[in-house]
Amino acid sequence: MKTTLYVALLLAAGLNATYAADAPSLSAWRSGASKQAIEKWVSEATQPGKNFIPVSQRYVVFDNDGTLWPEAPLTFQLQFMIDEIKRLAPQHPEWQQDPLVNAAIDNDLKKVMQGGKKGLMQLLTLTHSNITTDEFAQRVSNWVATQRHPRFGCRYDQLGYQPMRQLLDYLRANGFKTWIVSGGGIDFMRVLAEKMYDIPPEQVIGSFSLSAFSLSQNGTQMVKTMNGAFYDDEAAKPVAIHLFMGHRPVAAFGNSDGDVPMLQYTSGNPAVKAFGLLVHHTDSVREYAYDVHPPASGKLVNGLSLALRYGWTVVDTAKEWKTIFDPALCAYAGPESRQEKAN
Amino acid sequence: MKTTLYVALLLAAGLNATYAADAPSLSAWRSGASKQAIEKWVSEATQPGKNFIPVSQRYVVFDNDGTLWPEAPLTFQLQFMIDEIKRLAPQHPEWQQDPLVNAAIDNDLKKVMQGGKKGLMQLLTLTHSNITTDEFAQRVSNWVATQRHPRFGCRYDQLGYQPMRQLLDYLRANGFKTWIVSGGGIDFMRVLAEKMYDIPPEQVIGSFSLSAFSLSQNGTQMVKTMNGAFYDDEAAKPVAIHLFMGHRPVAAFGNSDGDVPMLQYTSGNPAVKAFGLLVHHTDSVREYAYDVHPPASGKLVNGLSLALRYGWTVVDTAKEWKTIFDPALCAYAGPESRQEKAN
Repeated sequence: MKTTLYVALLLAAGLNATYAADAPSLSAWRSGASKQAIEKWVSEATQPGKNFIPVSQRYVVFDNDGTLWPEAPLTFQLQFMIDEIKRLAPQHPEWQQDPLVNAAIDNDLKKVMQGGKKGLMQLLTLTHSNITTDEFAQRVSNWVATQRHPRFGCRYDQLGYQPMRQLLDYLRANGFKTWIVSGGGIDFMRVLAEKMYDIPPEQVIGSFSLSAFSLSQNGTQMVKTMNGAFYDDEAAKPVAIHLFMGHRPVAAFGNSDGDVPMLQYTSGNPAVKAFGLLVHHTDSVREYAYDVHPPASGKLVNGLSLALRYGWTVVDTAKEWKTIFDPALCAYAGPESRQEKAN
Repeated sequence: MKTTLYVALLLAAGLNATYAADAPSLSAWRSGASKQAIEKWVSEATQPGKNFIPVSQRYVVFDNDGTLWPEAPLTFQLQFMIDEIKRLAPQHPEWQQDPLVNAAIDNDLKKVMQGGKKGLMQLLTLTHSNITTDEFAQRVSNWVATQRHPRFGCRYDQLGYQPMRQLLDYLRANGFKTWIVSGGGIDFMRVLAEKMYDIPPEQVIGSFSLSAFSLSQNGTQMVKTMNGAFYDDEAAKPVAIHLFMGHRPVAAFGNSDGDVPMLQYTSGNPAVKAFGLLVHHTDSVREYAYDVHPPASGKLVNGLSLALRYGWTVVDTAKEWKTIFDPALCAYAGPESRQEKAN
């Protein structure tokens, strides 16, 4: 009976061991302060002790642009918007007189940006509204399937940062629920988040506007509009977290000053020893280097000075990230590695 | 070795059997058309065959007022609002001239309702804004701990419908993710949904407005406002489902015409054989009987006629619900069973 039990226990243990054997590593992180801080915090949060965090509270939030995928030279969604303007313009003669449309078609990004928030909303209206949510998702899928990032030469869905992708897996393996909280459009990101990050649609929070529901010949339809537009950045991020998630996070990961309020909200969580992290892009060879003068979305200036006060971890991507992208997906590791387009 | 393996398998099976032994029953449902329809649909959805639904698509949505808990004579939240007006009025001399406030204090519900949507928003502003979200949650908790339903004599959190509570467990045991989609306030319901229904805050969708985030002496604060108020009823329900959940449901459960668009959206799901159910309140002895002339929130008129066309299940609560409330929580089963207040 002893042998029987032993084998039985081995087998039973094996059921769990399968999981342990697959436990995600942080192999794309070099040994250093950031990796050490992450592992220490997770270890304390998941083991008995004064910093233990019950599983029911393990909600963690990640910015997306610049934190999980690149945001330069343009955010993926702005690139999608411009590519869609170009694709759709021939079907819309009424757009021909629109200087903003023409700037987009001419790749005159400076002029596009000079339109400010109003101009951006105008171009978003042309590409992100008056179509069904299903059609929009299809357009995003088509775009991803056919376009490549101008610098890295890879499809956009191959460009998740490998160290951050591993971090998501690592946190989930330790019982954390991973959420995205991004300035990116909620409908845009949801098309990609499940495949790229294993994050289901309901755990993706982003900028949004309200759709319109109606009955249709085929049953029902949901049409994208610009009504009630909510821009999920800065102080709006904690607001959106409260609205969608309804929990105060125990860890927050970002890369720009627009993420600071979300990190402050997290660090202020009175129930736990929270964790904050800022990705500082320092690698101009393998990716981009920026903070004060960002190529696209957000600066990282206040965040760096506040990191000291709040005890946030600041990642030096040049030094601490062994790889930027998963080499199995995108071999780019600097100009010399640039793979020419297959087509 | 054969014996060893056999024991090992028995033990391994035992790990799963624990779950099977605890599998929730629908014991509060009488045998009948509704219980049969539910069990048939779940059985087909979870077993190989043409109606099988992958676990990744098993999202189901429940209205709350009148579907999971009573909505008469007032919805719980309106009762909370009125009780809060009464509690707070002495601290607010500036309210004394307000006829709506006075109507609430005098229990003159007719007059309160005559104020229409504008009047309601006015009273909600007094009780649901200009306080932190933490303070609001505390007020709801205090109210629930101290107040009892005027007819049933039980605390409000003891009044979940037992058959529906069992249905939630039963669906979850079969791999479905259960969500609330209600006209009730999202911050109000989230205080109660986890305890009453085992539904975590992020799976509760309701009427909402945007909070305001700021730094404070203690760290940060989130204050409730009435900005961007979204009333989650009628056609807004599918809109909110798309926004918060990002999946099209495979089953929807409601009780009034306000739930019809959500059921239509669900029934129109092209990927699955969806399920729709309407609770028809027919039991004036143990609870309430209404459809054309409801005591409070919503009529059930269009829903009943559309049920035939869409194949929705209509529950006759008098005939099909063995119990209304869990007798261990609230013994009310008609006027003769009325338990007097303990205090």
